[in-house]
Amino acid sequence: MKAKIHITLKSGVLDPQGKAIGHALGALGFEGIGDVRQGKYIELDVAENDPAKAEAQVKAMCEALLANTVIENYAVEILA
Amino acid sequence: MKAKIHITLKSGVLDPQGKAIGHALGALGFEGIGDVRQGKYIELDVAENDPAKAEAQVKAMCEALLANTVIENYAVEILA
Repeated sequence: MKAKIHITLKSGVLDPQGKAIGHALGALGFEGIGDVRQGKYIELDVAENDPAKAEAQVKAMCEALLANTVIENYAVEILA
Repeated sequence: MKAKIHITLKSGVLDPQGKAIGHALGALGFEGIGDVRQGKYIELDVAENDPAKAEAQVKAMCEALLANTVIENYAVEILA
């Protein structure tokens, strides 16, 4: 099954990359840009065919490697 | 309005970061991991209140700065 994972910084954690993007967009002439936050987006295939088991496996991957749960949130979406 | 942007490598473009994630997951004991692709996920606020105009503005930002359209695709989603 295919899994989509979004990893985002928790609110309250400073996001210098997002700030840099916001400044650069302003310098390019885009106006009215508010808060910008950058996160990671990962797509992966797992062999597991049961959606619930696949989700549990991918969440374990997030906890073990993909996300730094001290400062990041993750969201897992399993596609059929 | 709030915009969500996904920036992903075009298919056929080598993704060493995704490969590294796949290998690392394998080394941690996760089995059955297929293709892994990593992209970027950006959330931003724009002052524009018309969804169509906001989408056009955010697409212009993607073309100008956020995505390298030679090797990357982008998808824009505008939230009410």
